[in-house]
Amino acid sequence: MTAQKSPLAPASFPDFPEIAGVQFATGNSGMRYKGRDDVLLVKFDEATTVAGVFTKNSMPGAPVDWGRKILPTGVARGLVVNAGIANVFTGAAGKKTVEETAAAAARLFKSPVEHIYVASTGVIGDPIPTETITSLLPELEVKLSAKGGEAAANSILTTDTFAKGAVGRCILDGKAVTIAGFAKGSGMVAPDMATMLAFLFTDAAIPADILQQLLTEANEKSFNCVTVDSDVSTSDTVLLFATGATLNRPPQKYTDPSLEDFKAALLALMTDLAKQVARDGEGASKFITVKVTGAETDKAAKTIALAIANSPLVKTAIAGEDANWGRVIMAVGKSGERADRDRMRLNIGDILIAENGARATSYREADLTPHMKGTEIDIDVDVAVGDGKAIAWSCDLTHGYIEINADYRS
Amino acid sequence: MTAQKSPLAPASFPDFPEIAGVQFATGNSGMRYKGRDDVLLVKFDEATTVAGVFTKNSMPGAPVDWGRKILPTGVARGLVVNAGIANVFTGAAGKKTVEETAAAAARLFKSPVEHIYVASTGVIGDPIPTETITSLLPELEVKLSAKGGEAAANSILTTDTFAKGAVGRCILDGKAVTIAGFAKGSGMVAPDMATMLAFLFTDAAIPADILQQLLTEANEKSFNCVTVDSDVSTSDTVLLFATGATLNRPPQKYTDPSLEDFKAALLALMTDLAKQVARDGEGASKFITVKVTGAETDKAAKTIALAIANSPLVKTAIAGEDANWGRVIMAVGKSGERADRDRMRLNIGDILIAENGARATSYREADLTPHMKGTEIDIDVDVAVGDGKAIAWSCDLTHGYIEINADYRS
Repeated sequence: MTAQKSPLAPASFPDFPEIAGVQFATGNSGMRYKGRDDVLLVKFDEATTVAGVFTKNSMPGAPVDWGRKILPTGVARGLVVNAGIANVFTGAAGKKTVEETAAAAARLFKSPVEHIYVASTGVIGDPIPTETITSLLPELEVKLSAKGGEAAANSILTTDTFAKGAVGRCILDGKAVTIAGFAKGSGMVAPDMATMLAFLFTDAAIPADILQQLLTEANEKSFNCVTVDSDVSTSDTVLLFATGATLNRPPQKYTDPSLEDFKAALLALMTDLAKQVARDGEGASKFITVKVTGAETDKAAKTIALAIANSPLVKTAIAGEDANWGRVIMAVGKSGERADRDRMRLNIGDILIAENGARATSYREADLTPHMKGTEIDIDVDVAVGDGKAIAWSCDLTHGYIEINADYRS
Repeated sequence: MTAQKSPLAPASFPDFPEIAGVQFATGNSGMRYKGRDDVLLVKFDEATTVAGVFTKNSMPGAPVDWGRKILPTGVARGLVVNAGIANVFTGAAGKKTVEETAAAAARLFKSPVEHIYVASTGVIGDPIPTETITSLLPELEVKLSAKGGEAAANSILTTDTFAKGAVGRCILDGKAVTIAGFAKGSGMVAPDMATMLAFLFTDAAIPADILQQLLTEANEKSFNCVTVDSDVSTSDTVLLFATGATLNRPPQKYTDPSLEDFKAALLALMTDLAKQVARDGEGASKFITVKVTGAETDKAAKTIALAIANSPLVKTAIAGEDANWGRVIMAVGKSGERADRDRMRLNIGDILIAENGARATSYREADLTPHMKGTEIDIDVDVAVGDGKAIAWSCDLTHGYIEINADYRS
């Protein structure tokens, strides 16, 4: 199936830099996709540290189980990713696939098996023919190259309509550090797929425990603020690898002031990728940014922001360019978090819509029409009970979503 | 806008009985709908008790505020309902509308104002021109009749595609008791509307506090098990009125054995209405029943059932007649409730799909195809961690939903 590129896609894939200590190779397994690479092998220099966050779905795929199990070692030597079959709800066979895949890469790299990460994306419930991956790995090893970032970003896609990459640069301990990464989202142009994967790479030297804190913190404010349709994948995985090639003195703790610039660069990069995932949401025709302020806590604000961003009625109204702001009020109210109906304020696209429990006297729907007709919709709610604030990114709910998920059979 | 009747609608509206002590009259206010009645006046005999449950949305409409305020009196003499404007997020003006409407009916019925209930459904954020209702009430009083149930059921609809009524009969203290009621759902054929109202009437004599327990308990297992799109209305209201005309000896407590038959009849009636609401969900082409067993508690089971019933990916797969059962697994996993991936079981339409953490060896997709092509889809999940069980009713997510909520302007 060929999909039209999302109208919200960035102009081009970024110029993806080499990251010292990281090499990529891609190939075709033939397990599902023809005519494109669907397996990615990544090799890391020794001493590469790793951090990861995984889906909260209680039906995780076998690769997620494996990643959780080996993450405490804090060291990574390799990563194998396949697209097409997610290896989820596959029982003992699925576990064996992951173990054999990791073992095959470990043999090639002469590393402990628990330093090899595995990620899969695609159909739930089907087993992976393991040898389609393992038999490919030796030829991929020969092709490993630091220049392979863009090909790597393309190889992990399922039915995303564009490859998602981002690059950041910062200073750490006086050294120039590069961070680069790519992600795949919920571009579910064929049914069955609802998986977010993201792989991030840096040449900085950062101990694994601090790297984990950096990733967890940035993830909460980036990927965890994106929603396309409220359905939580069984494969969501974000991994951050740090090769240490820049030879900076490693930071001693998460609060080390030397990390400030890295923190900002990492968050910016992950936010960029997260927004690209929303921009490639199934059938998306408009990109939605929801800002919530005045909630009891930041966590409450996020719950409210996601209630708005996930509301089918809000999302269909935006698809229809309908200034149906009452639905935003409804979504705030259904969030379960405290909000003061009689003091709250709603702006859409900088236009004051409602305040103090009723429509603003200054509001005229005609003033809002130009914003609703645009492709970037901004919703800004102050719920007037505290200082908590949050942001969420999403897309509208269109016929495209139904076409992608109901009209075609896999 | 004229809407096609839902293909899932019952064959006809039930033969709606007279309930001794209840009289109906309907009329047209002109506030929004032309050529149909949109205001309902109901008069109750003195000594009618009342119970109510209201939306949990924290942005409730002014009529919900009023209902909550007067419910502790436990007595009802009248009810005024209008369709077209919901009187939600309307500030002081909305409060005044409700108070003036109740006062007008109270004058006619020579009753305390706090014995008059008010409910509104329709657009959020617009004020109601109060006099369009209050000026109509005197002529409605003249037309009051015990025979007006079906007209009443029609008058409260917004863009539902059919009127929803149900009738129950039972024995209480040796007397024949009738219960009858009607509801409106989320037939959001025009945007802006997402409101469930239900009004239930019985000639039994039941004290208000016991009536409240009866309603709350039955509501939890009926209306609270329905979902169309996960969006919680700001106007949801269910009221149960008991006129006492049967002159049974009133039960002394909720656990009174004499109430068993009434409890069963009330639950059956409310379940019937709840299912009709799902059958008239926007764009519905299939009716979905989700049964969950083996959860930690009944509450956990309900959360899981609603996670499945609300999942856009499950609902679009069903719309597409796609046996994409992995999405049900995903939805169980995202519910946040405990489930044992490696022991759970999934049946769809009596066909065993998955067990023990993987696809069942006996499962062939062709066996499931006839069920997926039908209009009644049954999903049955055992999550294998306890004895909790629950049921939820919903409908699929089709192009019709997008058409109704995005394509047309109100």
